[in-house]
Amino acid sequence: MRCADFIVKEPMVIGHECAGIIEEVGNEVKSLTPGDRVALEPGISCWRCSYCKDGSYNLCPDMKFFATPPDLCFKLPDNVSLEEGAMCEPLSVGTHACRRANVGAETTVLIMGAGPIGLVTMLAARAFGAPRIVLVDVDSHRLSVAKQLGADGIVQVSTNIQDVTNEVAEIQKTMGAGVDVTFDCAGFSKTMSTALSATRSGGKVCLVGMGHGEMVVPLTGAAAREVDIVGIFRYKNTWPLCLEFLRTGKIDVKPLITHRFNFSQSEVVEAFETSARGGDAIKVMFNL
Amino acid sequence: MRCADFIVKEPMVIGHECAGIIEEVGNEVKSLTPGDRVALEPGISCWRCSYCKDGSYNLCPDMKFFATPPDLCFKLPDNVSLEEGAMCEPLSVGTHACRRANVGAETTVLIMGAGPIGLVTMLAARAFGAPRIVLVDVDSHRLSVAKQLGADGIVQVSTNIQDVTNEVAEIQKTMGAGVDVTFDCAGFSKTMSTALSATRSGGKVCLVGMGHGEMVVPLTGAAAREVDIVGIFRYKNTWPLCLEFLRTGKIDVKPLITHRFNFSQSEVVEAFETSARGGDAIKVMFNL
Amino acid sequence: MRCADFIVKEPMVIGHECAGIIEEVGNEVKSLTPGDRVALEPGISCWRCSYCKDGSYNLCPDMKFFATPPDLCFKLPDNVSLEEGAMCEPLSVGTHACRRANVGAETTVLIMGAGPIGLVTMLAARAFGAPRIVLVDVDSHRLSVAKQLGADGIVQVSTNIQDVTNEVAEIQKTMGAGVDVTFDCAGFSKTMSTALSATRSGGKVCLVGMGHGEMVVPLTGAAAREVDIVGIFRYKNTWPLCLEFLRTGKIDVKPLITHRFNFSQSEVVEAFETSARGGDAIKVMFNL
Amino acid sequence: MRCADFIVKEPMVIGHECAGIIEEVGNEVKSLTPGDRVALEPGISCWRCSYCKDGSYNLCPDMKFFATPPDLCFKLPDNVSLEEGAMCEPLSVGTHACRRANVGAETTVLIMGAGPIGLVTMLAARAFGAPRIVLVDVDSHRLSVAKQLGADGIVQVSTNIQDVTNEVAEIQKTMGAGVDVTFDCAGFSKTMSTALSATRSGGKVCLVGMGHGEMVVPLTGAAAREVDIVGIFRYKNTWPLCLEFLRTGKIDVKPLITHRFNFSQSEVVEAFETSARGGDAIKVMFNL
Repeated sequence: MRCADFIVKEPMVIGHECAGIIEEVGNEVKSLTPGDRVALEPGISCWRCSYCKDGSYNLCPDMKFFATPPDLCFKLPDNVSLEEGAMCEPLSVGTHACRRANVGAETTVLIMGAGPIGLVTMLAARAFGAPRIVLVDVDSHRLSVAKQLGADGIVQVSTNIQDVTNEVAEIQKTMGAGVDVTFDCAGFSKTMSTALSATRSGGKVCLVGMGHGEMVVPLTGAAAREVDIVGIFRYKNTWPLCLEFLRTGKIDVKPLITHRFNFSQSEVVEAFETSARGGDAIKVMFNL
Repeated sequence: MRCADFIVKEPMVIGHECAGIIEEVGNEVKSLTPGDRVALEPGISCWRCSYCKDGSYNLCPDMKFFATPPDLCFKLPDNVSLEEGAMCEPLSVGTHACRRANVGAETTVLIMGAGPIGLVTMLAARAFGAPRIVLVDVDSHRLSVAKQLGADGIVQVSTNIQDVTNEVAEIQKTMGAGVDVTFDCAGFSKTMSTALSATRSGGKVCLVGMGHGEMVVPLTGAAAREVDIVGIFRYKNTWPLCLEFLRTGKIDVKPLITHRFNFSQSEVVEAFETSARGGDAIKVMFNL
Repeated sequence: MRCADFIVKEPMVIGHECAGIIEEVGNEVKSLTPGDRVALEPGISCWRCSYCKDGSYNLCPDMKFFATPPDLCFKLPDNVSLEEGAMCEPLSVGTHACRRANVGAETTVLIMGAGPIGLVTMLAARAFGAPRIVLVDVDSHRLSVAKQLGADGIVQVSTNIQDVTNEVAEIQKTMGAGVDVTFDCAGFSKTMSTALSATRSGGKVCLVGMGHGEMVVPLTGAAAREVDIVGIFRYKNTWPLCLEFLRTGKIDVKPLITHRFNFSQSEVVEAFETSARGGDAIKVMFNL
Repeated sequence: MRCADFIVKEPMVIGHECAGIIEEVGNEVKSLTPGDRVALEPGISCWRCSYCKDGSYNLCPDMKFFATPPDLCFKLPDNVSLEEGAMCEPLSVGTHACRRANVGAETTVLIMGAGPIGLVTMLAARAFGAPRIVLVDVDSHRLSVAKQLGADGIVQVSTNIQDVTNEVAEIQKTMGAGVDVTFDCAGFSKTMSTALSATRSGGKVCLVGMGHGEMVVPLTGAAAREVDIVGIFRYKNTWPLCLEFLRTGKIDVKPLITHRFNFSQSEVVEAFETSARGGDAIKVMFNL
């Protein structure tokens, strides 16, 4: 892979997630050496607009994606593999969400959706110190994976909007305390309605999942309990933290990499089918 | 009016807004003297729950309303009339909303709805230093009142949800800069949709109006621009600040008191009809 | 021990730290039952002043200490002993300090002083998720205790102000990264000077220890790197969190209770001598 | 003046404050046109380090000063003169200080020192909405200037450290309310001691002045009232706001420009003497 100022070989890619080994660097690059194993943060902000200068470079209206400068190229710790390094990208979503919702040692967490994004958000919330995390999904297999990966409680729900009241009651019982922060990692009217009702007065709902444009939701009731809604867009300043979580073992992403493919035409097709099928696939990794 | 520890005479009342003159005080009341002119904050929190102890006493699940203790009874400055003192209650709604949305000298403000709540929110936002405030309504008379009371710009809109895109464009043009904070003081699906679309990335929408329980809104698009939604419930610690705004003239509420009635049966009926009719009525005041 | 609305028997006391078993309750007390094992938060705020209403009840200028109302009386989880419950008080100091300095999963922590307050601050910082904690003291025995209790690094220093520059270098090397937050749990000019110099630009120094009134410190240099200084006074809303930390095992205070005494005259004298002597004494507990 | 990508003619300079007219621009510069009147923010951050990416570009350890890129070059509004534009630099110091101390419509402000920095801090605090501002100095002339420029109260003090207690009492009486935020724009042990003692519990002291490296201050007492100390280094993202304050007339800097000189050798010498002498000189401007 050829970037602005360096060349990366043996990259591991999952979607826009990427890691690899530095093969060549330009004359002016001082921070990287051929042979360095690195994870790459995609997207280059302009560093000229008010968002960038205010530290919200993820909201930069002039983001570019075709090359990665050295400062977005992070050396992997020795005990972090290229595959794990590539997982910094999805993990960054969960990490940015936890920061925006201010998750810490005093924050009980509810997560709607036990798919890949729900799972990385759970791992991030645990790494941020959340003392109790409950996951909700319609799929019992996904929930059992969540439980294996460390969920304190799981609740299986329906897709029927009529069931919200009963399901909120069951969620709150499973939590055993008020819900401080809910991450909606699915993004449906029903999951958001459940999130808004289940969260305690003064708590937060973070909408992570990009389900549907329009939603039908009980906003007024939530606002009148000062349950705030925060969104996320991509991530910022997350790679160093994610690599530290991986290095110290606070987060183990290996169980999330369920399938591996080479980059031949037939394998690419198979990979996309595997990913789309769901089932036991969480993250599908390409070895370029 | 007889409270727990004191008696108020000549009260002025608008809804739950109240001010009056202290007639008698209990033996243990040190902070009040007969003859003191006071504004009363309604609602007594328990001061025992986690919300109260954390300073969010407005979210106390055990709020009581039948009596006012001396510490919720605030002396009026000499240049503040009883009528103006009673206006602390609606003004507190706007003040609490401005605090929750962190309005200051760098915050451009859009307000959906030019009714009583929209107007007090405008006055509060101005007092908090907002450099540019634009009001939106369907009613041209309300908008002209808003203009007289200090709006920097006004935009008349329809009730047709199809018009949102065009109206957002006109609102942004009238603002002449990104919208940092939008207060939705109406609470309809359309006003909230407009609010979410008109606010800049990274900005805030504060839902003040209690329109409808369920709303159909483009939540995902707003979340993906990190436009956060904050709600409000009542107010907290607002009376001293509102009285200071009135004392210094930073806020003038007199134009908001459009009608005055005595508390006879016929006048009460007339007052409610006047208030319900809208027209040029903003706040209707009773003299008990 | 007789409180306003209930009687506590078998109290365990260390200074103003206290826990015990409820023996009798007044008619109006609903939250407590005889036989309940509880920890007591000392100090009753007025709940009438601006500090209390704003959630900063620890700064209440009208705090009283002679009785504990039921809402400051917290039931102990089954697996938390009375002795551990009494430790909520010193632990609250460390917990409040961590909250004020906003310690979390991304915060590297330096602690000046490995005495009782330094140690509870270390345990609290760990429970808040601090990934790396280094303790500094003049006493090698204290430092070895800190290491046993979980410090990631320790640095022995002198009392000579001339050594600050070299010691800061050694501290930063031991930390292996910038110091985000330093807690000065000693409160001397030298410890504070070291704290201000060792903390990274944009970091925080929290002054916990109550050493000397006047200090000679390089304030200007610290301010010009935007190293902020925050203080603490007592604690607020910490008992439920401390009990949760004890219940879940996130914090183990048992190693801090090094000596136990009955409340006879001779044992009280011995206890004070033990405590004053230092040596291997951390916390000395009375069984009343 | 020749910058990286453009040439500025007729610059006005006061120290590192600068404004001028664009004479030529490089091919790639789209945001500037010859003839544009601009104010220049000095200092180019690296936009590669963790401080820059987190929005704290003022703390960038790799700041460069020899050239100004177009994004640090801000067009002047039509009603703002080059002289006023050059004043954005000192005004930025006051503006950044107000942001760090979170000054707003509810913040009473005390300012130690009525020199140039004290005065720009006063103007900024007023623009941020501070309802009451008191200035303190040893010099009666400076204080009378402060009064003319809008101070609500002034207090003349001595340089004798023994007087702190009495002077704090007089300051608090002049303020007529608790002091929420104190800016120490002088930076002496005595001014900082006064600042720490005069500020209310839970308030903030912002150290703006760069007086002396070491200070003798009552830190412990301040910390035990949770009076926090924040510092400032330069400024960030202040030019657009300062230009808006100048455009709208919220701030008038013209009275601060007391002397004007051309850039001949004799006038430069005279200018420096005028500035050093103090007296009625506040800011001395060069016309290059």
